[in-house]
Amino acid sequence: MLVSSSALCEAQSSHSTFTFHNTLMPEPSSLQAGKGYLVLTPQFAATTGKFHDPRLDHAIERAMSQLKQETGVLIPVDVQSASEVSHPVFSISVDGPGEKVQSVDENESYSLTVTSQSVHLQAATDVGAMHGLQTLLQLVQHTDTQYFLPAVTIHDSPRFPWRGLMLDCSRHFEPIPVIKRTLDAMAAVKMNVFHWHLSDDQGFRIQSKAFPLLTQRGSDGDFYTQAQAREIVAYARARGIRVVPEFDMPGHTSSWFVGYPNLASASGPFHIERHFGVFDPVMDPTRASTYVFLDKFIAEMASIFPDPYMHIGGDENNGVEWKHNPRIQAFMRAHNLKGTAALQAYFNRRLLKILQKYHKHMIGWDEVLAPGLPTDVMIQSWRGYDSLASAARKGYTGILSSGYYLDSMQTAAEHYAVDPIPSSSTLTPEQRKRILGGEACMWGEYVNSNIIDSRVWPITAAIAERLWSAQSVNNVNDMYRRLRVESLRIEALGLTQISQEDASLRQLAGTQKITQLKVLAATLEPATFDQRDQYTLQHNVTQQTPLDHLVDALRPDPPFRHDFEQLVQRYLDHPDANSKQNQRLRMLMETWVTQQDRVSEQMRHSPRLAPAQIRSVQLGQMGSMGLQAIGYLGTGKTPPPGWEAAQVALLKQAAEPIDLTRFDIMKPMQMLVEAASGKHAAAAAH
Amino acid sequence: MLVSSSALCEAQSSHSTFTFHNTLMPEPSSLQAGKGYLVLTPQFAATTGKFHDPRLDHAIERAMSQLKQETGVLIPVDVQSASEVSHPVFSISVDGPGEKVQSVDENESYSLTVTSQSVHLQAATDVGAMHGLQTLLQLVQHTDTQYFLPAVTIHDSPRFPWRGLMLDCSRHFEPIPVIKRTLDAMAAVKMNVFHWHLSDDQGFRIQSKAFPLLTQRGSDGDFYTQAQAREIVAYARARGIRVVPEFDMPGHTSSWFVGYPNLASASGPFHIERHFGVFDPVMDPTRASTYVFLDKFIAEMASIFPDPYMHIGGDENNGVEWKHNPRIQAFMRAHNLKGTAALQAYFNRRLLKILQKYHKHMIGWDEVLAPGLPTDVMIQSWRGYDSLASAARKGYTGILSSGYYLDSMQTAAEHYAVDPIPSSSTLTPEQRKRILGGEACMWGEYVNSNIIDSRVWPITAAIAERLWSAQSVNNVNDMYRRLRVESLRIEALGLTQISQEDASLRQLAGTQKITQLKVLAATLEPATFDQRDQYTLQHNVTQQTPLDHLVDALRPDPPFRHDFEQLVQRYLDHPDANSKQNQRLRMLMETWVTQQDRVSEQMRHSPRLAPAQIRSVQLGQMGSMGLQAIGYLGTGKTPPPGWEAAQVALLKQAAEPIDLTRFDIMKPMQMLVEAASGKHAAAAAH
Repeated sequence: MLVSSSALCEAQSSHSTFTFHNTLMPEPSSLQAGKGYLVLTPQFAATTGKFHDPRLDHAIERAMSQLKQETGVLIPVDVQSASEVSHPVFSISVDGPGEKVQSVDENESYSLTVTSQSVHLQAATDVGAMHGLQTLLQLVQHTDTQYFLPAVTIHDSPRFPWRGLMLDCSRHFEPIPVIKRTLDAMAAVKMNVFHWHLSDDQGFRIQSKAFPLLTQRGSDGDFYTQAQAREIVAYARARGIRVVPEFDMPGHTSSWFVGYPNLASASGPFHIERHFGVFDPVMDPTRASTYVFLDKFIAEMASIFPDPYMHIGGDENNGVEWKHNPRIQAFMRAHNLKGTAALQAYFNRRLLKILQKYHKHMIGWDEVLAPGLPTDVMIQSWRGYDSLASAARKGYTGILSSGYYLDSMQTAAEHYAVDPIPSSSTLTPEQRKRILGGEACMWGEYVNSNIIDSRVWPITAAIAERLWSAQSVNNVNDMYRRLRVESLRIEALGLTQISQEDASLRQLAGTQKITQLKVLAATLEPATFDQRDQYTLQHNVTQQTPLDHLVDALRPDPPFRHDFEQLVQRYLDHPDANSKQNQRLRMLMETWVTQQDRVSEQMRHSPRLAPAQIRSVQLGQMGSMGLQAIGYLGTGKTPPPGWEAAQVALLKQAAEPIDLTRFDIMKPMQMLVEAASGKHAAAAAH
Repeated sequence: MLVSSSALCEAQSSHSTFTFHNTLMPEPSSLQAGKGYLVLTPQFAATTGKFHDPRLDHAIERAMSQLKQETGVLIPVDVQSASEVSHPVFSISVDGPGEKVQSVDENESYSLTVTSQSVHLQAATDVGAMHGLQTLLQLVQHTDTQYFLPAVTIHDSPRFPWRGLMLDCSRHFEPIPVIKRTLDAMAAVKMNVFHWHLSDDQGFRIQSKAFPLLTQRGSDGDFYTQAQAREIVAYARARGIRVVPEFDMPGHTSSWFVGYPNLASASGPFHIERHFGVFDPVMDPTRASTYVFLDKFIAEMASIFPDPYMHIGGDENNGVEWKHNPRIQAFMRAHNLKGTAALQAYFNRRLLKILQKYHKHMIGWDEVLAPGLPTDVMIQSWRGYDSLASAARKGYTGILSSGYYLDSMQTAAEHYAVDPIPSSSTLTPEQRKRILGGEACMWGEYVNSNIIDSRVWPITAAIAERLWSAQSVNNVNDMYRRLRVESLRIEALGLTQISQEDASLRQLAGTQKITQLKVLAATLEPATFDQRDQYTLQHNVTQQTPLDHLVDALRPDPPFRHDFEQLVQRYLDHPDANSKQNQRLRMLMETWVTQQDRVSEQMRHSPRLAPAQIRSVQLGQMGSMGLQAIGYLGTGKTPPPGWEAAQVALLKQAAEPIDLTRFDIMKPMQMLVEAASGKHAAAAAH
């Protein structure tokens, strides 16, 4: 029996009946539920076959430790030799070691078979086996008294070979522990590329021994030593994750020029850029010395980052300094380079030669794609599928990031709907193969180490599923159901995406008593990217502006948003005054009304909460609005004339961003008001 | 006007009236509130005088960053040169650098003067200045719209020069980030000694290059590299904290012998000890090779740890292996050593010579004190004040740890009441000087990196105050009031002592919906040390037993315990049916009653919560009991015959430990029942 994503599968075992409750994320390619289950006992021990890569042994030990911690069953953590163990056994066999340097072509498939007697994990490579271990951990279920693995046969492999996450560590620096726990969470959802954005106008973040002033003058002291970078590469490799470093050039390079002004196209002095946006400083592509510098720099970085790919950015060069430099203008004329795009293409061709010298494939953002660029270069598209498809038609490989920008503050559902090869695609099979996958991108303007986890997780797990699972896996409600579980698993790895909100609220309110404030916070989320961008311009926000307001405490797409939407939809399907939904809605709305007194007061007295204090009043209003709406709906009475218009006016006010916060309850509230006013029965029914 | 610890001090400024709200912890020696206040603006900049120790500059930058983050005011983070800044200015002047290696005699005093125009911090050493920076951070207050520093003059210095925290990183290993955040919190409350318990039967935790098998065979791979240990020493020094390493010997040394069995008094093979308690393995003090080994080892460790003190443990040697080894018995006879204590004293004298060779003072637990031991040795007392006083009379210096054991699961109030030199002390002034202070001790049997913060903090802040502030600072309610604030400050540093409970409850319940479960958890705390010890024996608990039950989620002395006690006491002072206290008690009791259905069900279905599920029922019962009690008290009616006996029986049941949990509400509940039964009016009136 093949289980679809949302199905509960009942199986009859020799012992008793149980329900196989699917919480796997990402969904595997195929899953066949079997009969029975295997109870976890202290006899459950892992053994490996002939092949013993130390990396795999460590991964097994980590998985067994995690299993032991989460179940309390005293299983042995170390890999046992086959002769030592009796049943039930967990045998792991791998055909052979993967590439020493993990390749984009790595075979990541695995098969996992659980019977009532044993577990067998089979994979072509250790990376595949590591994915299988994550699936095993996600399979664990429990009765009231025991933990068990349901009998199941899984054959699994990814839809796309490139499933990445980019962290911008330039605009705000992220310490090593943040990077490590991010890698832990990536491994849990089978992502395999950590794209490390290491330089930008706002900071140069990796030590160069050849050019020490890069960090001495360009980092404010916040940078990764080479030893730390190697530690991260090793940590990632141990989890089946490749590390692709990005050195954005020729633009986005202000921080380079503070120490090395001769690289620049204008005369200095230069400073670390504190603002966000696109700036003029750009490398001088006309001087031989620039390429001498880059050759030496790339050689050094290639010795730290073994991955065959290196990202050179290449985005958002406004060309201003090139246009204003007569020497560069003369160079362009002499070389018949028409326009700054042509000059950038010239730069890229020369940079490509350097990368090739050090055996690196070049990756760049859409802008690098220019006539004459060899198809060896890979495109990362922030522009979208059309740009990516156009590149694929020309023979370039590429990955999608448009639609996966985590700073957009979109919902997991919105990211989930974005497909690197949408079903409407007209690409040929060969062209499709060139689209290698995608990457979630966490740009660093508005995240620091306190809050980054909640911006990245659990949303990125939905993107990871999009990139691993079949295109047909697209049930949003079921995705959210499993995402809730996955978020708890990720929290168990030490991530703070759930706990950070309460911690921030306590700091903002200056008290541990935040029960009421949490009622409000659940209904709010950070403003959209565009709203924030506009605010930044108006308020002169910089890298040095503390991230310490209510917006920074809030989580994007908080669990309450989808829960409330579901509750209202279910209620509107049957607006019965005595239903469970009615009761729950009524109780909820009452908490919205009652929070107002205490929370308004609490916010008014906190300088950092005060700018958003009107939110408490607005939520109180929406609580009353909701109570009235379900009152009308329950009794079948019609609201008095003007009621709807008054509510619509309130909703319109509430929909405006305030101190960068927005309500996550607007659409369901609107539906309630419309339904109470006798409108849009169709919307309510779906 | 000198402000006492609990006083609110009103001062009239030229601008307006404000209330100086004292939340300093530890309390300073003297505090004089002035007139007015200084509003924090982006012009608030720090400058230093002639003396510029880089350590102090970094401490100032950290303090300014923290101030900026917590207020959102865009103050400059870097130390400014005096010529750059205009008023308001924050000037810091230090008489001269402290010792390169911080000494126990370091002058830690400082003076801090805030006026409406400026802030001046004056100290003899950079360590004193660092303490002053912490006080400054604790002074910040706010109106509805602004942050300010109240005008104040503080002269402050510690009562004791040795204010330490010991972490046992052997029984459970604690990763580097845990150590660092612990040091951050210690600095916040002006503690100055980190005592690092690095070896014990259950694990050898620091790399030795001379003896690599110590960690290769004795650590399960969990150890600190020498580079990491140096990093911790530097991190601590940057915060005015000395690092005193402990290598416990001659007992507690099983983990040494796995790699080096020739050090032992019995023949092997040896294994890393998994159980807790006192074990037989002990070093052989009769062989020259033992001292050759220790000489080389101490030399190596002395090169890593610059502090003049080194701790050699010396506790809990049961002497069994010495008694059973004929060669050792012969040695004892030949050297006229009567009994194993005498042999240990012989060992200590030889070890002392080695420590002296490397310029280290020896510290040991009470047991090291034996006839003939030079008074150069310092005693750390787990036995108590009498033992310590006896040592002081003999000329030994010492510190108190009895009463400060954090694994005892006592309340902050109980620790707070323990004084290294109680007012009843009959020591002479000279003898008193030998008692240098005390150390909180976190033994590692039942803590891992997930939960250690909540075992150590905020309780340790109360101990820090006992060791810094005057003996007369002893108002428990005021201590708790300030401890709540300090706990939030410590959370802002990245510690998890508040957030960990919810995170653990989510994992245990397998859901993010834990509102009701939190009602129960607030009323519970971990069992006492004795209860846990007994459980360990009965259930064969080892180092490898996961810490993943309800007890591990709970916090010792949770905020609710003291809050509830206060609420009941205030209520019993005026058991008026219409009082605010009555209302609050009634609402609270109702949540206890209503949690029962949902929480019992939730616990029953979780294998790791189920063993404690009866707690939910018991809390429900106590909710009903409380409602009845306040009913009787409010109406003045007498409970029916048998009511009190029935309640007492329920309370007796509830007082029993269940799955290592105990209720933190027993005493106030008993008071309610007694009061309702017309008894103990005196107790109620307190």
